[in-house]
Amino acid sequence: MAESGSTQIFAEGSPRVIVAGATGFAGALAAHLLWRHPGFELAGVTGRSEVGRTLEEIYPRYRVPQRIEELYIDRMASDQGAGIDAAVVAYPHAASAPVVAALRAHGVRVCDLSADFRLRQLATYEQWYGLHPHPELLAESVYGLTECHREAIRDAGLVAMPGCYPTASTLALAPLARAGLIADLVIDAKQGLSGAGRAATWQTHFSNSGENILPYNIVHHRHTPEIEEQLDELDPTHPHLRVQFTPHLVPLDQGELVDCYVTPTRPVTQDELDAMYEDAYGAERFIELTPQPAEVRDVRETNICRLHIALSEHTGKIVVLSAIDNLWKGTSSQAVQNLNVMFAKPESEGLA
Amino acid sequence: MAESGSTQIFAEGSPRVIVAGATGFAGALAAHLLWRHPGFELAGVTGRSEVGRTLEEIYPRYRVPQRIEELYIDRMASDQGAGIDAAVVAYPHAASAPVVAALRAHGVRVCDLSADFRLRQLATYEQWYGLHPHPELLAESVYGLTECHREAIRDAGLVAMPGCYPTASTLALAPLARAGLIADLVIDAKQGLSGAGRAATWQTHFSNSGENILPYNIVHHRHTPEIEEQLDELDPTHPHLRVQFTPHLVPLDQGELVDCYVTPTRPVTQDELDAMYEDAYGAERFIELTPQPAEVRDVRETNICRLHIALSEHTGKIVVLSAIDNLWKGTSSQAVQNLNVMFAKPESEGLA
Amino acid sequence: MAESGSTQIFAEGSPRVIVAGATGFAGALAAHLLWRHPGFELAGVTGRSEVGRTLEEIYPRYRVPQRIEELYIDRMASDQGAGIDAAVVAYPHAASAPVVAALRAHGVRVCDLSADFRLRQLATYEQWYGLHPHPELLAESVYGLTECHREAIRDAGLVAMPGCYPTASTLALAPLARAGLIADLVIDAKQGLSGAGRAATWQTHFSNSGENILPYNIVHHRHTPEIEEQLDELDPTHPHLRVQFTPHLVPLDQGELVDCYVTPTRPVTQDELDAMYEDAYGAERFIELTPQPAEVRDVRETNICRLHIALSEHTGKIVVLSAIDNLWKGTSSQAVQNLNVMFAKPESEGLA
Amino acid sequence: MAESGSTQIFAEGSPRVIVAGATGFAGALAAHLLWRHPGFELAGVTGRSEVGRTLEEIYPRYRVPQRIEELYIDRMASDQGAGIDAAVVAYPHAASAPVVAALRAHGVRVCDLSADFRLRQLATYEQWYGLHPHPELLAESVYGLTECHREAIRDAGLVAMPGCYPTASTLALAPLARAGLIADLVIDAKQGLSGAGRAATWQTHFSNSGENILPYNIVHHRHTPEIEEQLDELDPTHPHLRVQFTPHLVPLDQGELVDCYVTPTRPVTQDELDAMYEDAYGAERFIELTPQPAEVRDVRETNICRLHIALSEHTGKIVVLSAIDNLWKGTSSQAVQNLNVMFAKPESEGLA
Repeated sequence: MAESGSTQIFAEGSPRVIVAGATGFAGALAAHLLWRHPGFELAGVTGRSEVGRTLEEIYPRYRVPQRIEELYIDRMASDQGAGIDAAVVAYPHAASAPVVAALRAHGVRVCDLSADFRLRQLATYEQWYGLHPHPELLAESVYGLTECHREAIRDAGLVAMPGCYPTASTLALAPLARAGLIADLVIDAKQGLSGAGRAATWQTHFSNSGENILPYNIVHHRHTPEIEEQLDELDPTHPHLRVQFTPHLVPLDQGELVDCYVTPTRPVTQDELDAMYEDAYGAERFIELTPQPAEVRDVRETNICRLHIALSEHTGKIVVLSAIDNLWKGTSSQAVQNLNVMFAKPESEGLA
Repeated sequence: MAESGSTQIFAEGSPRVIVAGATGFAGALAAHLLWRHPGFELAGVTGRSEVGRTLEEIYPRYRVPQRIEELYIDRMASDQGAGIDAAVVAYPHAASAPVVAALRAHGVRVCDLSADFRLRQLATYEQWYGLHPHPELLAESVYGLTECHREAIRDAGLVAMPGCYPTASTLALAPLARAGLIADLVIDAKQGLSGAGRAATWQTHFSNSGENILPYNIVHHRHTPEIEEQLDELDPTHPHLRVQFTPHLVPLDQGELVDCYVTPTRPVTQDELDAMYEDAYGAERFIELTPQPAEVRDVRETNICRLHIALSEHTGKIVVLSAIDNLWKGTSSQAVQNLNVMFAKPESEGLA
Repeated sequence: MAESGSTQIFAEGSPRVIVAGATGFAGALAAHLLWRHPGFELAGVTGRSEVGRTLEEIYPRYRVPQRIEELYIDRMASDQGAGIDAAVVAYPHAASAPVVAALRAHGVRVCDLSADFRLRQLATYEQWYGLHPHPELLAESVYGLTECHREAIRDAGLVAMPGCYPTASTLALAPLARAGLIADLVIDAKQGLSGAGRAATWQTHFSNSGENILPYNIVHHRHTPEIEEQLDELDPTHPHLRVQFTPHLVPLDQGELVDCYVTPTRPVTQDELDAMYEDAYGAERFIELTPQPAEVRDVRETNICRLHIALSEHTGKIVVLSAIDNLWKGTSSQAVQNLNVMFAKPESEGLA
Repeated sequence: MAESGSTQIFAEGSPRVIVAGATGFAGALAAHLLWRHPGFELAGVTGRSEVGRTLEEIYPRYRVPQRIEELYIDRMASDQGAGIDAAVVAYPHAASAPVVAALRAHGVRVCDLSADFRLRQLATYEQWYGLHPHPELLAESVYGLTECHREAIRDAGLVAMPGCYPTASTLALAPLARAGLIADLVIDAKQGLSGAGRAATWQTHFSNSGENILPYNIVHHRHTPEIEEQLDELDPTHPHLRVQFTPHLVPLDQGELVDCYVTPTRPVTQDELDAMYEDAYGAERFIELTPQPAEVRDVRETNICRLHIALSEHTGKIVVLSAIDNLWKGTSSQAVQNLNVMFAKPESEGLA
């Protein structure tokens, strides 16, 4: 087999980044994207299991020959270990916070993929996830939805990556929220099986998920409060909206479509909506506004969010369709987009 | 190859039924169900194309050896042709009405699968489908949602079969409508590719529909007014609801899930809802109430509609999930259920 | 919910059958088929786990309301327990043999779905599966490929059900083997994910098996010696063939296609082949000979094996395609077919 | 929507390439790859239909904003039209040859994706495809399997791109052919639906191809003589092998797995085979030798061919599994690989 691929090519002096928790879907993809990124050095990949195996053995298609190590933050972060500048942390909630805290203590800049620092309100976190291991870090956390918080991300020490549903939903609704237009909101979300993670369960078994549609957490999904907090923050009227959010797994691998049904606070026109979205996203590299219904196939393995905005003349409701790749823009490529912003690189470097 | 299967087994004196338009998905399945039904004689299958081929050649899995004939209503309905008692008509809208009219003129009882006689208001029909070829028949038409109109179906000469989306939606919402509980309604529907019909199009091409989710007719689907008419008729307050209805094609073959998001006219409790649905459907053979989210895999190739009713304490909204097989309960097996009712047979005969 | 379905309907005095190991795919389907069979009483379903749950909770679509019990053979087989006439045993190999032995000791007739009694040669079994727990039962075991061993099955006490690959392969090749025509044989088999069983593994994870083809056990699959034994027994020249057998999982649920590539011992013609197969299978209810390439969709959820036989004029080889539903004819419906034979019922009862 | 993406970025002075027939799957992907290639200028995309639409409207995911033009070779190839250096021709067989001839008359270097110049023997072509429109060009045609004919490709004026099955098969078998090891050969091939092309047919309808396996052209596929010619040329003993080749469509989009079953001319060992393949492909950038069974998921949207070589000790046969993406290495990315070779660029430029 050719030797090519076994060494990483990047510009000298590039920031050194590790991926902590690289054996799951999100961490592995982050490692893959950083490995082929010309502006970062992938300085290590760690795992809580499968230590010693190469990432390539676990995910052949990602072609990352580095070996899974145990995570020794002290050594990795020290000069002896050459030091690291940043980390993508891909641990489950509650397990992530202590790792983030230790990394921050060494001055390492962190993109955290878990839920630990996404929610602004500690009480909300503890209602949905239990006791917070490091509430003192909430204050410095910046919400990593790049298109909405780019300026704060530039200098952030800790970026809390949005969940995949909140990414698609908040991008879909931000222009309406800023205009104070959302009176009532129903979100019906559909996602591929990769969204359920790498663990083999009955849910992810092909004989259960194939030829099926799996609704789950019908009236109590953890991403609901995250969407509510974000919209409330964007909306100058702070309406404390209660969002009806329902997710489904559909038989495909990567892809997420979020249908947002908005009852507006006042009548609007399609032209007004089009102008509003063009104004918000016309200059965004990774947002596409489309006159056709947005489809997940068109964003697969990209960092792109594709939006379609339709006004129903029949009901007066606004319907926004938002399509992303849940593993890419919904998780790992958005982390790389943020790293680009944090380290003053072109925002699309390594993602085009 | 064994000869078995080449002759139909049915009780002597059974009503004679033809399927007009048996080459499409709906007609072919109706023919299959009638062929193996012990209480009807499948007296003929007709098509506008593929005349002379056996239905088995076109759909091997249905194993119906009868040949596609041209439709000669006069001859088929006359005594010389042995006469026919009933017909399932599976033509497209506008093409169906003249066939139905001719059959009715001969006294043949008809289950019409098209949209031609579903809508109560002529004006609504003509707004969505164009000039109606036989408006005079609207008065005698009975809406074939068996669980809601069983008594009228018993003696009906013309049963207009509901669309698949209205079947799943109206069954999901009838108890709420009867209680005058629906103040606002969003319906997000997902369906397999068989719902797009037999015609080969880019939409149904595996390379387009696989690994994809296809939203379509976002704010103007023809099934919307049908659902509105039905709910309005069931609701004693006749609220003239405007329904926000959005359908999607998802990568599976047969199966349809409809998520109904209801803002109630007054606060309700889960217990109240459970009692309401148990009262409405507890005795129904083909409705299943389930404490788990309804899944399409559990109703595949059955006449069953599976309902899950959840009250969100967070938003106060009622979420009803309704799963059917779009080709079975959504179309052809419900036609057979109605034929059973029309000819005083056990309602589940040939469908268990 | 309607009460219908909660009691089984069967002819009085029907044989009483239990399914031991009803929580896996094969046992659950056997229970489903027996539950709706008019000629058997499903006298119990047992499991090594999930005791106390109804089968309907585990597999809603099978709609069998009986509860999983622990297996107490002594009690079940005794008169106090009303007695049982037969059992379908759906345990893994090695775990099955002791259960079969205990049932046989009580005179219960058994269809065993495991590999424990399929192989004629004890040495072959022990080479592939390890020490045999009950070799003394091998002598009375009859191989349950109904179309090949119908007469022996009639009076059998112990029927060893063929593996799904050997079922499709041996039915495909029996006429050639009987004619001594097979000089060299390559079998390339494709199967849906249900063939991998109910256990959730990385193999069955949708994100691994979807959009993929999974070859496995390339040059050493356990079904190879079973096919070899069967063909050798059918072939009057006893050629001790070595079969090259390679299985693959493809992204569908139920369905198995086996391509058999035969180098014949002498030149043959297509007419000769057609006559040979018509002669062997023309009267068989569950074998279909088709001039079109056999497709798994056409046998889904049936007990049918669909065969296509093609002679290549270019290479002189014979290509036989054999399509079955791996869970039905490949496993559970063939068990019911055998029970019908064993208890002198019409062979297709409960399977049409 | 962002303007980015609307202009192509490439090195000044890069060769100008057109894609003729860019509306089909193969041409569209070639245009996509050239559009993002830093070393070629995509000078035009042409089509026989859909003229005036942008390629992005037809294939949103490829994000190529150029408009489909009619093909005017004289104007395009002349200086007034700025001239073109190369063309990828993606027309059906017979339609392609005249276009290739006209381009060659202007000195344009061509990669032809059709079957028109793949076969060495005119008689073989005419047996399978009918009268050849330009047999005089056969002499200058070079077979574009890069790893086998790299040197000839460097200076070629006309490169005939291999079919996707011959690509996977010949790469799998070349080392064995060169060693004169192939005595008998069965190839069982599986491919996703994209292999059936963009035309919507019953074959590609999701309701036919989903949950199914579609064998086709069982004993007479056009790729058979192409594979035979290639192997015969590589084999110093010129054995005039007759290959038994059978293709199938399986329910996925992009991906092709070819199982090659070789009866060797003499006994071999696994070590010998491993050395032979390492020797042939160890230095190849786009061939991966894997100790695990090759899977199509691992080569999706890459130019990589992944090979697994297994010796069966049981039968003495050699089993080679070869996985490619039928649209990439099987067609369009291999064309770009060849263009890289023809214009002395790094072979993996634009493909990594």
